[in-house]
Amino acid sequence: MENLILDGRVVAGNVKDRLKERVATLVNKGVTPCLATILVGDDPSSETYVRMKGNACEKIGIKSMRIHLPKETTTEELLEKINELNADETVHGILLQHPVPSHIDERKAFEAIDIHKDVDGVTSLGYGQTAFGFGKYPSCTPAAIMEILDYYNIPVEGKHAVVIGRSPILGKPVSALLLNKNATVTTCHSRTTNLADVVKLGDIVVAAVGKPKFIQGNWIKKGAVVLDAGYNKGNIGDVDYDACLENASAITPVPGGVGPVTISMLLKHTVDAAEEMINK
Amino acid sequence: MENLILDGRVVAGNVKDRLKERVATLVNKGVTPCLATILVGDDPSSETYVRMKGNACEKIGIKSMRIHLPKETTTEELLEKINELNADETVHGILLQHPVPSHIDERKAFEAIDIHKDVDGVTSLGYGQTAFGFGKYPSCTPAAIMEILDYYNIPVEGKHAVVIGRSPILGKPVSALLLNKNATVTTCHSRTTNLADVVKLGDIVVAAVGKPKFIQGNWIKKGAVVLDAGYNKGNIGDVDYDACLENASAITPVPGGVGPVTISMLLKHTVDAAEEMINK
Repeated sequence: MENLILDGRVVAGNVKDRLKERVATLVNKGVTPCLATILVGDDPSSETYVRMKGNACEKIGIKSMRIHLPKETTTEELLEKINELNADETVHGILLQHPVPSHIDERKAFEAIDIHKDVDGVTSLGYGQTAFGFGKYPSCTPAAIMEILDYYNIPVEGKHAVVIGRSPILGKPVSALLLNKNATVTTCHSRTTNLADVVKLGDIVVAAVGKPKFIQGNWIKKGAVVLDAGYNKGNIGDVDYDACLENASAITPVPGGVGPVTISMLLKHTVDAAEEMINK
Repeated sequence: MENLILDGRVVAGNVKDRLKERVATLVNKGVTPCLATILVGDDPSSETYVRMKGNACEKIGIKSMRIHLPKETTTEELLEKINELNADETVHGILLQHPVPSHIDERKAFEAIDIHKDVDGVTSLGYGQTAFGFGKYPSCTPAAIMEILDYYNIPVEGKHAVVIGRSPILGKPVSALLLNKNATVTTCHSRTTNLADVVKLGDIVVAAVGKPKFIQGNWIKKGAVVLDAGYNKGNIGDVDYDACLENASAITPVPGGVGPVTISMLLKHTVDAAEEMINK
């Protein structure tokens, strides 16, 4: 079967190209879009992610304000820092890298981020607005999945989309976005019985479980579109790629699929937020 | 086939019985729980609904503050009234009866309701919190559906729930609540293709379309549980009740099913909100 490999690097490049001009316009008006990233503690993968995001900002002219707090930081200290960034008019977006150390109330910290600066789409308010169809900054990986579908002109309306995973930043918001694009949406998770049969219903399958090669080839309906939001140790996705290739009409690889587009969505939201702020 | 008729009047009676004692305790502490209802204009069914809700409050000792605004009320005037009620410490819950006249920005009005008083579950923040598992006052009809399932000990975990409808106060929140109870959830709507086949997947079927007798008997899997949230002119549900009885193991009638429990949830949320306020 002829497969279309959904190339996230191409999609991300396209997004970033369109952003450069908008950044230049903002800078001409005296505003440099700025993303503040907060890293708490010394988790090496978190450090890598934050650095990648910061570097991606700088490459297209977005200022990267990198805040690194010690792992002993308390919830109150973190909230104080977030409130400071909420009040800082030079900051347009705030990203709190997760997971934070376990003694911190992560949800409370997320919820403290001002909705106008929640470019990573982590607040319950942002999620609710997205689900109701007027959210400005959906969570970045779900936004990336929609961007890939859009870039490759893959129809969503009337399709049956099956999302495996229900996390607040991935499974839930991608289900909401697909529903808003008129897909029939089934959300599955660890308590789903007959997962293989349910996945087989999907014209569009989104894997967001966080388990390497979890989605098997024979679960995929012939001709389905497979989007792998997994990113497990060793650059391995949630999908058994080679096996799923047999049945999928289109599929995202890992790496080079959803990942790069996710970062480009973060940049786009930061630029959107900067434009919103000067148009207020 | 033996069917269980899910009697909403019994469930609602049970909820209200438990509330009476809580209301008495609050009154003893000097606090009378108070629900403010806002009706804009003269739509006869809206007047009836608001009156039913107010009367139900009074029957169990909740104060009903009934605000009736003329149909010419502007969005700004409505927002002003909502803000006044937000600030009024004697008011614990605010219900804006919808639909409001078409010249009013209904979403803006809903969003203005303080989250602590959003006992009808209409704000995007309340929805997001509900979907993330820490919402206090989910939309009342979805809460009623969960209460009925709970009262009759109908298992939800691992079941496939099919929700037909995706409105912000019904289809979306009931999908979220079922998902949080570990159902696999499929949300359908007007753009769903092969609706009959999709409904047939459901161990639990929630009808929330607003079209009389829309759900056909042969769409229902043998042994499925059917919950009819429809309430169309002439007391007719969204489900073709007699035909669905053939296949359903349990079903809510209309009237006397989801409707009465919906009102009891509104009362419960108002009492919850009054307790929250004195415990602050």
